[in-house]
Amino acid sequence: MSLVVQKYGGSSLATPELIKSVAARIRSAHDSEGNVVATVSAMGDSTDNLLSIASKVSETPDLRELDVLLSTGELQSCALVAMALKAMGKKAVSLSGAQAGIRTDSSYGKAKIAGIDTGRINEELEKGNIVIVAGFQGVTNDSDITTLGRGASDLTAVALAAGLNADRCEIYTDVEGIYTADPRLVSNARKMTQVGFEEMLELASYGAKMNPRSIELGMVYQVPILVASSFNNEPGTLIHDGENMDTTVGEIRNRVRGIATDKDVAKITVFSVVDRPGIAAALFDPLAESDISVDVIVQNASVSGTTDLTFTIKQFDVDRAMKVVEKVAQDLGTTNVGKAENLAKISIVGTGMQDSPGYASTMFRSLAEAKINIEMITTSEIRITCIIGSDQVAKAAEVLHAAFELEKSD
Amino acid sequence: MSLVVQKYGGSSLATPELIKSVAARIRSAHDSEGNVVATVSAMGDSTDNLLSIASKVSETPDLRELDVLLSTGELQSCALVAMALKAMGKKAVSLSGAQAGIRTDSSYGKAKIAGIDTGRINEELEKGNIVIVAGFQGVTNDSDITTLGRGASDLTAVALAAGLNADRCEIYTDVEGIYTADPRLVSNARKMTQVGFEEMLELASYGAKMNPRSIELGMVYQVPILVASSFNNEPGTLIHDGENMDTTVGEIRNRVRGIATDKDVAKITVFSVVDRPGIAAALFDPLAESDISVDVIVQNASVSGTTDLTFTIKQFDVDRAMKVVEKVAQDLGTTNVGKAENLAKISIVGTGMQDSPGYASTMFRSLAEAKINIEMITTSEIRITCIIGSDQVAKAAEVLHAAFELEKSD
Repeated sequence: MSLVVQKYGGSSLATPELIKSVAARIRSAHDSEGNVVATVSAMGDSTDNLLSIASKVSETPDLRELDVLLSTGELQSCALVAMALKAMGKKAVSLSGAQAGIRTDSSYGKAKIAGIDTGRINEELEKGNIVIVAGFQGVTNDSDITTLGRGASDLTAVALAAGLNADRCEIYTDVEGIYTADPRLVSNARKMTQVGFEEMLELASYGAKMNPRSIELGMVYQVPILVASSFNNEPGTLIHDGENMDTTVGEIRNRVRGIATDKDVAKITVFSVVDRPGIAAALFDPLAESDISVDVIVQNASVSGTTDLTFTIKQFDVDRAMKVVEKVAQDLGTTNVGKAENLAKISIVGTGMQDSPGYASTMFRSLAEAKINIEMITTSEIRITCIIGSDQVAKAAEVLHAAFELEKSD
Repeated sequence: MSLVVQKYGGSSLATPELIKSVAARIRSAHDSEGNVVATVSAMGDSTDNLLSIASKVSETPDLRELDVLLSTGELQSCALVAMALKAMGKKAVSLSGAQAGIRTDSSYGKAKIAGIDTGRINEELEKGNIVIVAGFQGVTNDSDITTLGRGASDLTAVALAAGLNADRCEIYTDVEGIYTADPRLVSNARKMTQVGFEEMLELASYGAKMNPRSIELGMVYQVPILVASSFNNEPGTLIHDGENMDTTVGEIRNRVRGIATDKDVAKITVFSVVDRPGIAAALFDPLAESDISVDVIVQNASVSGTTDLTFTIKQFDVDRAMKVVEKVAQDLGTTNVGKAENLAKISIVGTGMQDSPGYASTMFRSLAEAKINIEMITTSEIRITCIIGSDQVAKAAEVLHAAFELEKSD
């Protein structure tokens, strides 16, 4: 019997009516597909509401207790969805992360899944139950509740699909799939019918609205992931590395697949650093200790024995990061530290870009013709990223979308 | 080291400010008393809000799923209280019913505590933690979440105190203790400094605002229970059967201790039933199957070979009960079934009443002088209950309070 794992996001569960409509979708899947395991996020804004109460009780809420608190949102929605299914005459059972056997480490607030004990879920499936699992949460070896980080219900779904050897993982959300660019920026952005895992990983990491860890997990365990809307029956986007990727849709491997954008960027430059081994570690270790994520790093080639080192961070972190960096800079023999805010990242992504230098020049020329200044450049094998002014990101997305003809169907 | 178990009700935890104030009270107890385990109810109206959402998802919510849903309210408040304690620099940890080892049967919605595995709690106490336990919930042998019934956070507290051999159980709520009568009915009702378990059990079952099962448990395990306000530092009422009950406060055993009232009463009478063995079972079995609780039962002595059988139920159940009874009555050889609504129960309670017939006559005479008609009478060893019109209950409480001089101090 086939097995499908589904995930429904918080906006798809925001009201009792939406909960019933999600239950109806799960019922259809059960009728047509066989076994269904569905994982759910907390209803609408409930996680934000809980965070707000916590912040009134403690300025810096204890992370273990915050996880206990936040885990209740998903527990509520999974009970309600199971209730709605039972009211429709279906056999269903809700399971918390702990009951579903989702074991994690004890990094509260951003726990990593250590493994899934699928015993209880399989038992319930054998009884003919549809199994509804609370997303976003797990349990440590000491039976303590953990959460996996914001947006990590996707991760629960893909991990369950991998652990249960599901045929497919389906992520239902408030968008209809993965687009060639952010449709709010590019009016003729096109929904892709399919995209490869590597490409999706770059798109997700660089702005597309999906949890990158869940893509990575899908890639490692080869679980095809469908991203589609929970509000209609449009086909959505299938993320996979299936065999047909090279055969039937071979042509798409030679193309830029999508444009990722991220407007939440600031950069910090440390000028005239004495160029000797260990300066990067001296700078980035204290930032990591302060829990500041550094994204793009560029170090200019040294000519005069000193070098300039630039990196980007989230806008939100810029003041904290400046304090850390100014302190460290003195040890590096400089006091010259600068920052720039209101920046954006724009990336073109596609496995077809490997070993094909033409893509970079097309990107740079298109931006130049649109009078968009590039502040930094960074690349991976299947991605080219430029840092530009955030006020120019919409224009940049539009010209690149046109330059690479992304509006044309796969 | 001494150990106190405390319980805080929902109205004591309704806002972030109140949660912090409860945490401050727990901190004080920890500073002065040693080990503290506190159990908490859901914040304010949150249980009612969850019930309302459930009713919109399903007309008759599945009981297992309803328990999962409702259990989240207590989980939230216990995480928040632990968070507040940690913000005050105290070591604290929240535990769900399952984590606290509260094992129950699987009667969802009204589960019975089968036992408490105190391992985890003792482990946390040994680490120097204040332990905050989610009230009202437990876990079955199959790791399914259960709830113990409305108001059962009291039960969690007393069961924990019994299981942990605590020195005392303290129930903090929105009243200052146990009164000689409902203060809303009797203006000079007096807070008792202490009351015996048996007396409290009768008072609780017959109207005082406390979970009768928790009193019973306290009595069986001899756990002294203090009932006091969470909003001030008034002394409250100690429920116990300590040795000093017979010695230092011996005199109070010769008195009526309190008046319990309940305005939510209706009665049904089946007239002219053929008097033969088994009629009570024939009548009350179908009512029990319909989950209708029958309270007082009076059967008149048979003179003509037929008998009249009267019983009381909650006002809420009267229409459902009439349907059941009218169906059964035909099998009992009668069609004569009558009901009366808007009734009340008023009881006088006191261990001193045992073998002292004078109390009954004083009660009946006082009611007669106040022109209050008695519809039914029922007694236990330490209680006399009259069924009267609900519009007369305030007057009845006042005259009985005066007749038995309950305004006088212990």
